[in-house]
Amino acid sequence: MSHNDTFLRALRREKTGYTPVWLMRQAGRYLPEYNKTRAVAGSFMKLAMSPALATEVTLQPLERFPLDAAILFSDILTIPDAMGLELSFTPGEGPHFAHKTNDETSIRALSLPDMNRLRYVFDAVASIKKALNQRVPLIGFSGSPFTLACYMIEGGSSDGFPNARRLAYARPDLMTHLININTDAVAAYLNEQIAAGADAVMIFDTWGGLLSSAAYHSFSLDAMKEVLRRLQPNAAGEKVPTIIFTKGGGQWLEDMARSGAHALGLDWTTDIAQARQRVGHQVALQGNLDPLILLTDEKTVVRETEAILRAAGGAPGHIFNLGHGIVPQTPPEHVAALVETVHRVSREILN
Amino acid sequence: MSHNDTFLRALRREKTGYTPVWLMRQAGRYLPEYNKTRAVAGSFMKLAMSPALATEVTLQPLERFPLDAAILFSDILTIPDAMGLELSFTPGEGPHFAHKTNDETSIRALSLPDMNRLRYVFDAVASIKKALNQRVPLIGFSGSPFTLACYMIEGGSSDGFPNARRLAYARPDLMTHLININTDAVAAYLNEQIAAGADAVMIFDTWGGLLSSAAYHSFSLDAMKEVLRRLQPNAAGEKVPTIIFTKGGGQWLEDMARSGAHALGLDWTTDIAQARQRVGHQVALQGNLDPLILLTDEKTVVRETEAILRAAGGAPGHIFNLGHGIVPQTPPEHVAALVETVHRVSREILN
Repeated sequence: MSHNDTFLRALRREKTGYTPVWLMRQAGRYLPEYNKTRAVAGSFMKLAMSPALATEVTLQPLERFPLDAAILFSDILTIPDAMGLELSFTPGEGPHFAHKTNDETSIRALSLPDMNRLRYVFDAVASIKKALNQRVPLIGFSGSPFTLACYMIEGGSSDGFPNARRLAYARPDLMTHLININTDAVAAYLNEQIAAGADAVMIFDTWGGLLSSAAYHSFSLDAMKEVLRRLQPNAAGEKVPTIIFTKGGGQWLEDMARSGAHALGLDWTTDIAQARQRVGHQVALQGNLDPLILLTDEKTVVRETEAILRAAGGAPGHIFNLGHGIVPQTPPEHVAALVETVHRVSREILN
Repeated sequence: MSHNDTFLRALRREKTGYTPVWLMRQAGRYLPEYNKTRAVAGSFMKLAMSPALATEVTLQPLERFPLDAAILFSDILTIPDAMGLELSFTPGEGPHFAHKTNDETSIRALSLPDMNRLRYVFDAVASIKKALNQRVPLIGFSGSPFTLACYMIEGGSSDGFPNARRLAYARPDLMTHLININTDAVAAYLNEQIAAGADAVMIFDTWGGLLSSAAYHSFSLDAMKEVLRRLQPNAAGEKVPTIIFTKGGGQWLEDMARSGAHALGLDWTTDIAQARQRVGHQVALQGNLDPLILLTDEKTVVRETEAILRAAGGAPGHIFNLGHGIVPQTPPEHVAALVETVHRVSREILN
């Protein structure tokens, strides 16, 4: 048990003294110390593949801010890389795969990656857990089966992932095959992270919101449900709490709430008070400040953070976060103001 | 009155013999005849600024397909151009303004553009009306006040319009000033289009879906409501039906349905059957096939078109459309299959 288990208790909708907070991409380019470590590593992938350096950057934001959870430093595209697609990152260009899987031959040739090729991730989880020394819980994560498929089909990032959408509509059989392989891989990957010590796991469905409602349910939500169903207890025999996050998924919250996840991540376009009304008390909610609010000024950050806390009604069952990842231009002092506001105002609301 | 007034009757939720159909960007680069006219004009803006050529391209899709409405060929950025921002289009780069309005000085310097600088648009409306000769109704349109502000602040297109969002959060006073000017301009612009003969008008809110729920209501929906409130009757003294479309606005349909618009455009992520349940019979619904479905094959186009018609329950109160604009790679024969399917299957459903 962590000394600070507020985050885990909020995920289980238990009473907490304040609203816990962590931030998507909290270990990242907005921190000068991250950029230093990244420069030492030489490349993003070398950083992610070194358990020692991944541990270092994972802990950096916790040294600055009293955050209530750490999240494994890694990338969502480690799985397709381990399948042999050969991931690289070009500065300013984003991720790139040497091999695409966008046709019958390349998709049928895929298979579940050997989890030993992802050992560096599980070693990082174990190393971070040790370094955290029970200070706060550690979140493991994966991309969703559909989101991984998007990058695999396009061979990298894309505006609207048109080829992935086209394949989903024109060849649902082939898309299902790809999604099934990814589902097996994501479940195995998260189970290894749990075995290595992850205290909670999150599935990032960054691109499910690009699909029609019917295609979202078939190709993204159903696959996430299947991953959740396959998750194993941790070494202590306990069920590990889970979070699913579909960016642009605000229309589907009722269905997401029936997925088996303990919590739903909300992007910044959803009104958190309405989200609570819609899902009732089946799940915890995580979110949902627009990350661009951190680019404004301290007064605005405090005002908008407080507005979300009040709309969420304070704990239990709310984990404060952004509605998407921190952007690199974020001044760290605005993050400090956010974290301070969450803790202070949520205590006020609860008392 | 048009010989084929099915579209207008569907907007008013009157009974029709079949579901009317038109397609966003139906006059565009997927048509070889459009590209020929565009080459003659020399540039996109020269094409849009010539009433004769704008008439020619507006009518081109109607020659190929039995569409139930024509839409003025123009661009949503004509208003900021007329304000003096100097719009140009770089091939492959999208729109560009020579002047941005992203700070106190540039925003306070803006004023309502002289409608005479937009005379070419109203002349195009009159010219198209005459050329249509009552064959089908003509839709006029404008960008929404917020969507115009997005481009004005960024100086062109952008991934996520971060500066527009930042201004909305940090300087709501300044954003309100900009939105108020745009609201005046959009209302005046649409009233001139109505006076020139537009049979219906649509407001394209392409980027309202990037905002937090609170900011969407303040800066986008309220401004669209105000525009709708100021619209004047046409030359015959009749109220012209209206459509509002917020891409990514599926979470806000109930509020949009109370805007005063006759119809709501739906993007392809919304389930049209659920949308109808949520808004009841206050408004007509327009949409909502994923435009990428037109890049698949005829069988898929027919199947997915039919699925939307059945989910919408046939007419009245449904106008078939895409969930966003046609993409340039679309094979025209797939558009033919879509239009044929809408007319045929909706007649079957209604009988």
